[in-house]
Amino acid sequence: MHKRMFKKADGRVMFLYGNEPHTLPPLEEMEPAPTPHPHMRWHPLRREWVVYAAHRQNRTFLPPPEYDPLSPTKPGGFPTEIPFETFEIAVFPNRFPSLTPHPGPAPENIPVPVAPAKGDCEVVVYTPEQTGSLATLSQERRELLVRVWADRYRELLSRDEVRFVMPFENRGEAIGVTLHHPHGQIYAYPFVPPVIEKEVQSFREGPVLVSLLNDAAPYVVCQDEYTLAIVPPFARYPYEVLVYPKRFHPGPWTFNDAEFASFGKVLGEVVAKYDRLFARPMPYIMALHAAPKGEEAHFHFHVEFYPALRTADKLKYLAGTEIAAGTFAMDALPEETAQALREA
Amino acid sequence: MHKRMFKKADGRVMFLYGNEPHTLPPLEEMEPAPTPHPHMRWHPLRREWVVYAAHRQNRTFLPPPEYDPLSPTKPGGFPTEIPFETFEIAVFPNRFPSLTPHPGPAPENIPVPVAPAKGDCEVVVYTPEQTGSLATLSQERRELLVRVWADRYRELLSRDEVRFVMPFENRGEAIGVTLHHPHGQIYAYPFVPPVIEKEVQSFREGPVLVSLLNDAAPYVVCQDEYTLAIVPPFARYPYEVLVYPKRFHPGPWTFNDAEFASFGKVLGEVVAKYDRLFARPMPYIMALHAAPKGEEAHFHFHVEFYPALRTADKLKYLAGTEIAAGTFAMDALPEETAQALREA
Repeated sequence: MHKRMFKKADGRVMFLYGNEPHTLPPLEEMEPAPTPHPHMRWHPLRREWVVYAAHRQNRTFLPPPEYDPLSPTKPGGFPTEIPFETFEIAVFPNRFPSLTPHPGPAPENIPVPVAPAKGDCEVVVYTPEQTGSLATLSQERRELLVRVWADRYRELLSRDEVRFVMPFENRGEAIGVTLHHPHGQIYAYPFVPPVIEKEVQSFREGPVLVSLLNDAAPYVVCQDEYTLAIVPPFARYPYEVLVYPKRFHPGPWTFNDAEFASFGKVLGEVVAKYDRLFARPMPYIMALHAAPKGEEAHFHFHVEFYPALRTADKLKYLAGTEIAAGTFAMDALPEETAQALREA
Repeated sequence: MHKRMFKKADGRVMFLYGNEPHTLPPLEEMEPAPTPHPHMRWHPLRREWVVYAAHRQNRTFLPPPEYDPLSPTKPGGFPTEIPFETFEIAVFPNRFPSLTPHPGPAPENIPVPVAPAKGDCEVVVYTPEQTGSLATLSQERRELLVRVWADRYRELLSRDEVRFVMPFENRGEAIGVTLHHPHGQIYAYPFVPPVIEKEVQSFREGPVLVSLLNDAAPYVVCQDEYTLAIVPPFARYPYEVLVYPKRFHPGPWTFNDAEFASFGKVLGEVVAKYDRLFARPMPYIMALHAAPKGEEAHFHFHVEFYPALRTADKLKYLAGTEIAAGTFAMDALPEETAQALREA
């Protein structure tokens, strides 16, 4: 894998990853990103940090294709975030970040604890093409993407202030996506977020995901020698999918070549099955859960897919019991949704 | 307050609450409700119960007004859930419950712990009218509703298997509401749900809500002598509102007459402000958090409103960081949304 560092005019550092070296000359750059000052406040009832980034109200909202900021820049054309004629995979700091390396001081006189929102938010552009998905990318590009995630994990986790790193992808307008270009994001948090805290507790108590391997048959969506995709027997969303390496890994950074290839392939198959299930692109949230800093001995890396549809034309809504109590009510059994996806 | 018990033909027990006694004769009843068999499965990563109620897939979905199952029944007309010509407030077990007093056995051979989904799910119909809201109900009816909640708390918490009771209201199609008739629901859980567990921990450590009273000024939406409505300084949703009694109460069941009236009035004002804010009915989730069984000494009763809109025409979406990490990213400051609501 080749990696080229390019410093943008506004100081943000971009990485161009590829199977081939990237040597193109830079073109005209987009206007500089505004300086972000996000901060965090402590929620004393939920016992969690909430991040405030007021400048995000101005973020780009469903631009027409000719103003897609994640496309390569055409010579003499509209300058995008990526001032090159082409690339394989590009990673750079979000123009409207919730967490940032130099957030400045937090506001005063707030009646709960506050802190600067120190961390990072990156954008990962999967392809120079404006359309496509994990299912339609080439297997070579998917494998490169898994390697890029591994490299971002290493780099972001090496920073003193970062405790947890989460690559994720929001897909589809039903999820609130504001840019359709195939891309994901990475958040580097200065704390272990609440969902991950619970998973840390569980993995400290036992190898939860390895224990499931023997009973997985009714839940399998697809698999190969190294990677398993299941609708978990405890799914909270219809057609929820959990993907994980069969051997223990704290994150993709310990994968061997065969595991990188396998993980990319299985992710692609899951998305292909989603898109065939209702004969339309499935809106979803996909998130990578790797070990927070210091938990590498027990935390088993996995990817969670939360699809937004419960039927071809009905959304799964989170309402009273899910949002206000945290208890999910499901009307679809995992055994049945697993079969539907397996056969899709 | 008057309370009439009426046993429906399918065995479900309905309560008709009113300021006047209810003495009307019953009319023809709707077809019997199916027997529900919900169960729960343990989520070993999130460390929480997930409820499975497969029969809910068939629940009523946005019926036309003439088939509104929450309207009073007209003599000789379509039989609704309420076989009377009128009523003030009606409460009865949900036809498609996620939790039920006699769920039967849980399925076998599931590779995580399972249990019958024992508890209850009730429907609370605020008015015989098909339209309206907490803002447009009479103050007398709102006060009656708070008294009804108090009575349901007493009755449901008296059951051995019930640990926590949550009245709530989902409002608007943006939240996934399937019936527009003004109504709420009540879930009686056989465990303390995850969100409430955190609140229990906090209230055991200190009087979190009483401590906020002195610093509340910039956050006030509306208030009177007994009840405060604020956008909390740690809001996770734009225009989120928290309503609570200024004096300590574990639940509305310890309110005096003035507090019942005050709480109903402030809830009505909050919803009126929501509806004026964007000149359209605000979709929201409203939930009552009262003390779980055994926590009555410290847990301060409060109501949480989670509105779905962040501008007149943009929804607040929960995406990667909220859903997959549990950390909320906000682009609206509580100080600003509080002012907007206060002035609405």
